Amino acid sequence: MSRAGQPSVVALAGGVGGARLVDGLDRVLPPGALRTVVNTGDDFRHWGLHISPDLDTIMYTLAGLSPQDRGWGIEGDTFHTLAEAERRGEESWFQLGDRDLVTHLARSSALAAGDSLTDATRALCSSLGIERELLPMSDAPRPTRVVTQGGETLAFQHWLVRTRAALPVRAIELGGESVSTPHVLRALSEADLVVICPSNPFVSIDPILSLQGVREALTNTETIAVSPILNGAAVKGPLASMIPELVGKPASAQAVAEHYEGLLDGFIVQEGDGFDAPYPVLETNILIQSTEDRVRLAREVLDFARYRG
Amino acid sequence: MSRAGQPSVVALAGGVGGARLVDGLDRVLPPGALRTVVNTGDDFRHWGLHISPDLDTIMYTLAGLSPQDRGWGIEGDTFHTLAEAERRGEESWFQLGDRDLVTHLARSSALAAGDSLTDATRALCSSLGIERELLPMSDAPRPTRVVTQGGETLAFQHWLVRTRAALPVRAIELGGESVSTPHVLRALSEADLVVICPSNPFVSIDPILSLQGVREALTNTETIAVSPILNGAAVKGPLASMIPELVGKPASAQAVAEHYEGLLDGFIVQEGDGFDAPYPVLETNILIQSTEDRVRLAREVLDFARYRG
Repeated sequence: MSRAGQPSVVALAGGVGGARLVDGLDRVLPPGALRTVVNTGDDFRHWGLHISPDLDTIMYTLAGLSPQDRGWGIEGDTFHTLAEAERRGEESWFQLGDRDLVTHLARSSALAAGDSLTDATRALCSSLGIERELLPMSDAPRPTRVVTQGGETLAFQHWLVRTRAALPVRAIELGGESVSTPHVLRALSEADLVVICPSNPFVSIDPILSLQGVREALTNTETIAVSPILNGAAVKGPLASMIPELVGKPASAQAVAEHYEGLLDGFIVQEGDGFDAPYPVLETNILIQSTEDRVRLAREVLDFARYRG
Repeated sequence: MSRAGQPSVVALAGGVGGARLVDGLDRVLPPGALRTVVNTGDDFRHWGLHISPDLDTIMYTLAGLSPQDRGWGIEGDTFHTLAEAERRGEESWFQLGDRDLVTHLARSSALAAGDSLTDATRALCSSLGIERELLPMSDAPRPTRVVTQGGETLAFQHWLVRTRAALPVRAIELGGESVSTPHVLRALSEADLVVICPSNPFVSIDPILSLQGVREALTNTETIAVSPILNGAAVKGPLASMIPELVGKPASAQAVAEHYEGLLDGFIVQEGDGFDAPYPVLETNILIQSTEDRVRLAREVLDFARYRG
């Protein structure tokens, strides 16, 4: 159900691919039409600070601060604090830039003062000049843990960054409580269209879907997903090896679609990746790097949906 | 009372002048002989971090990291995080350097994990290669507040740094609880000599003296002070104007000595600053900048004391 007088699109997003489609949607949709629900299952404490990798990637992408050549941090950032931490024998496996640090300091400080993560995110967006609404999927901890095939359980960033995603995965566990926020549930209830961004289904989207009320909201609303797999590979991140490890199938767009069974009203894949499905499947170029690519794909997503923004 | 087989000197210290004499004593005394009790009345929270200005100044001085030209931070540090904070409209009046930040992050993180400030300081000293014992005067908050002649009450760093010590002072208040630590009380009970460093008596030394058991320990132990005022001026900081504002006398070494009435067994002043006192007063060159100056004055302090390390 739209809010009075304006269309309403909700994007569900995690890391880099998600950030880029959100950027495209942000540029194409009228002001106020887009709200983005962001995975916080990757959140963790490091150097005593609350780090929200997916929120940061999306904020920096929307603010035009993201580097071209890596999926985290701020373009041109320096690493003097990190170098000093390393020199002193402090933990230095997670790369926090000097400018980037302001985000983590401001967020941690706001949370310590009693603000919710939702409030802290709104303030960060405002200080970065971002006008669209970024909604953390939850204000409560919902940590994603990786159970390796060796039987170890690791916090997600430890597995992804510290071990460089080198350990094969047996299962993904979601800790904490399965509560979302009133903001997320309201956004979903008002949505004309939900876009599941090309993010990792297991560690970026499932944590959002695991929250009470989210899956139900999606079944009541037109939901379109964009495949994070093209030609059997992921553009970034460990998804291509996780699919066979977790569901026993080769990595493919179809395997992702099957993971979202019962939720989709349409699916968008790379040219040549099409398959038979009980809903329309659109083949196009889903590799989005430049701003032009992002805008083009965002337009195609909206044109493909029955909903017309 | 010495610890078995070795002499024991305790220094009470605050900012830059104190740090330099501690550095001299540290170089002159045998290993294990010096323990320094450091003012934590200046401690405050900034960017959500626990900042301990006096502990930091002394640590950086002992580690050989202090700049020549200013009394805080690390020589050659950069300020990229600070510049970004300013750009985003975050508080930027307190200058935290990029390398310096590691200290505040590590300390805050340790405190959040339940370590005491004493433990956190030991770990920081170790990571900076400092072997001598630096003891925070307390593990509990004991905030120094400045009551201005205009009737405002300001946290000490806000008065000193934010208003640049521009507002005349009516009174100094010490908040929190007047509890020291077992480490400090043991060090004092084992001391053969206590050296009150050339630090601001009102805001660096009084907070230490205000803690239960400290003043009593000093009256039982030989106590020598070095004047923070020479030729009517302070080398650094706001002391020269605080003396007339707080005790109604011109700034002088004698006014400082009178403030310490009942505690001193000897007092060391600049040549020409001598006065009649019920204890020996040594006139020498107390202006200490270079390492050679620091070592020379430390030797003179120890030679002047009845105690012979």
